[in-house]
Amino acid sequence: RLDRDRLIATMEEQATYGATEDGGLHRLALTEADREIRDWFRDQLRAADLSVRIDEFGNIFGRREGSDPDAAPVLLGSHLDSQPNGGIYDGVLGVIAALEFIRTLDDKNIETTRPIEIVNWTNEEGSRFQPAMQGSGVWTGAHDIETERTKTDDNGVAFGEALDNIGYRGDVPAEPGTEYDAYLELHIEQGPKLIEADVDVGVVTGIVGFTWGAVTFHGEADHSGPTPMHHRSDALVAAADLITSIRRIPGSLGEQTVGTAGYINAEPNSINVIPGEVTVTWGFRDPNDEVVEQAYQRVLTEAKHAAEREGVNYETEERMRAPAISFPDRPVNAVQRAVNQCNYQSLELVSGAGHDATHLTSVCDTAMVFAVSENGKSHSPDEFTSWDDCYKAATVLANAALELAND
Amino acid sequence: RLDRDRLIATMEEQATYGATEDGGLHRLALTEADREIRDWFRDQLRAADLSVRIDEFGNIFGRREGSDPDAAPVLLGSHLDSQPNGGIYDGVLGVIAALEFIRTLDDKNIETTRPIEIVNWTNEEGSRFQPAMQGSGVWTGAHDIETERTKTDDNGVAFGEALDNIGYRGDVPAEPGTEYDAYLELHIEQGPKLIEADVDVGVVTGIVGFTWGAVTFHGEADHSGPTPMHHRSDALVAAADLITSIRRIPGSLGEQTVGTAGYINAEPNSINVIPGEVTVTWGFRDPNDEVVEQAYQRVLTEAKHAAEREGVNYETEERMRAPAISFPDRPVNAVQRAVNQCNYQSLELVSGAGHDATHLTSVCDTAMVFAVSENGKSHSPDEFTSWDDCYKAATVLANAALELAND
Ligand SMILES: NC(=O)NCCC(=O)O
Ligand SMILES: NC(=O)NCCC(=O)O
Repeated sequence: RLDRDRLIATMEEQATYGATEDGGLHRLALTEADREIRDWFRDQLRAADLSVRIDEFGNIFGRREGSDPDAAPVLLGSHLDSQPNGGIYDGVLGVIAALEFIRTLDDKNIETTRPIEIVNWTNEEGSRFQPAMQGSGVWTGAHDIETERTKTDDNGVAFGEALDNIGYRGDVPAEPGTEYDAYLELHIEQGPKLIEADVDVGVVTGIVGFTWGAVTFHGEADHSGPTPMHHRSDALVAAADLITSIRRIPGSLGEQTVGTAGYINAEPNSINVIPGEVTVTWGFRDPNDEVVEQAYQRVLTEAKHAAEREGVNYETEERMRAPAISFPDRPVNAVQRAVNQCNYQSLELVSGAGHDATHLTSVCDTAMVFAVSENGKSHSPDEFTSWDDCYKAATVLANAALELAND
Repeated sequence: RLDRDRLIATMEEQATYGATEDGGLHRLALTEADREIRDWFRDQLRAADLSVRIDEFGNIFGRREGSDPDAAPVLLGSHLDSQPNGGIYDGVLGVIAALEFIRTLDDKNIETTRPIEIVNWTNEEGSRFQPAMQGSGVWTGAHDIETERTKTDDNGVAFGEALDNIGYRGDVPAEPGTEYDAYLELHIEQGPKLIEADVDVGVVTGIVGFTWGAVTFHGEADHSGPTPMHHRSDALVAAADLITSIRRIPGSLGEQTVGTAGYINAEPNSINVIPGEVTVTWGFRDPNDEVVEQAYQRVLTEAKHAAEREGVNYETEERMRAPAISFPDRPVNAVQRAVNQCNYQSLELVSGAGHDATHLTSVCDTAMVFAVSENGKSHSPDEFTSWDDCYKAATVLANAALELAND
């Protein structure tokens, strides 16, 4: 049994770092707010007597030894960074549930056979720097560390520079270094399936695949008054055309396909200037990699058509491609047994959001527990999971982790 | 005869204040670059022995007395501010041509009957603060000064605060204070009519009317992954719909109607978040006020439809409405006579850009001279007028002004 009050108090405490006026979080990767929550997290790990290590990509680990020091550890965790003006549960609930599990083991003097490690992955959100799940992607070898260090944010600041600025470039190589037995991640669902099915927790069986990228249209900046309509090459009109297509593509591909234009930047962005250069991003997801590839081909075609219709030039850049993932039976069954032990109602589902678990599947047995998102909303201050639902999911995580750690 | 080399040298000198790497200007109203060009301009006025006054809205005047000190003055000028990443001729050529005229009168010891005044109007461009032609609008009484002082830029900085910050809130009331005989403004055309007609200068007979405004769509920020397409209220999809309509409206209204969405801002503007709030601006122009009103009604209707189709809320705000203007015969004929004196080829045309002259028509006889825009482009670093064409237009301005000043 976890300490429900301590879990809530710790969640409330973390939510003060990067808090926004409307009750959300603005804690983008490698910003000052991220540095503060990392400092706080490191203090919590030390206070729990864990040995702390920080790798050269900023991933933070805390380790509790097992009775068999040579056994492959069980790894638990998620991320502490947030979206711009995001919610207070996304990511951090998984880290704090893992911490609460360790604290409870200590309270009860429980020794596990395997070591247990907790991790905070760097830049899971992928908002400031793309791709998402960057820290886990480097750690598992899916991405090259040197390439990722050169990725830049909107203001041209490189990842490597930002990491150095907050003082979280550690001295341990960003790689497993040893065998891991399993990785378990608790996360809020961020969608409406659990609340619609009216269950206590979600047992995640896999994660959708996705493609992310950007199209930049190059038109001609000119005066919005004396320039006749037929003399114009308006980059924003082409971008609007593409945004409409991005909205339409999923409907022609699959029931579960989603597509979003989340980001736009126009230059010079002045009320009386025809926009000369506009960048807009795409994001498509589906449980089937082939559908993701089709969406990618479609967005390239639509960008070409949009550019041709408006007489502008364009270029495209894919910024992320993640394969669809199916979790193996062993850890999923452990999660399901933990649900059953607690007499909780559960739903098996595929995650529509990406998670660090995507990358961990290449390293060890991986599975996830989802907490109910009351209104299905996320990446917004309206994100909400009741303390009851947080506690239930944390309890399932703890029971599943305990089983695996003694396995 | 003006001093062609001095005119060019002065144009080149001013272009160093707020210069951009690609040969343009970034000199937004009431920024540091605006302060620097104002300081420079004030020094030029003083060096030409003009008496300088600055009004409480930042408009800067220089006065050269006439032989009849009680005669109503002739006013010449334009503006020194620029668009973001704009060109080096827009506005400033009119101010420097007026200065060159004064310098030439001094060289030749010419006394005019009427006093001559030069003016730099505050915030003509209307990019940072709306409306455009704000300084002349306040000075002529078209706008209330207190209302205009509270207008804010994109970062929430108020006009009044920005004016104080650069130290250009003067002590003279922002009003004519006396009768004016005439206002003449030289400006680059900023469109393709003169170059297509292959003439030396343009004789402006009027200015189009316009409506500017903004629509803000309020959708629901949510996660771009687990949120099914039919659960979405995407503010950017609604904005894209409206942008497409803004492009289409002119074609159904009139041959000379233009419409532009020049500015867009999306929140939270993250690749994996459904946009929750998007603001997009409109600008429509036509020589006929009724067509401008029709465009305004159409954009309101289209905003409503765009919001309904996407299931989002919205609000609209008109930020500027300027009537179409016809200049009176007396000053236009003076300009035409000056053209004929020089044996230049000219074209009569209506300006598709707004100018401070719009407001001056309510105070005194007003007309304009246009210099050829070689490629028809403006509000862009590609804006280009040859020194020959600058000199020709300046000569026409000087001859017309001399006639009016002795009238
Ligand atoms: N879980 C989560 O929000 N991850 C961020 C990457 C994504 O957009 O799926
Ligand atoms: N001349 C000029 O560019 N004025 C700015 C206002 C407008 O957009 O017409």
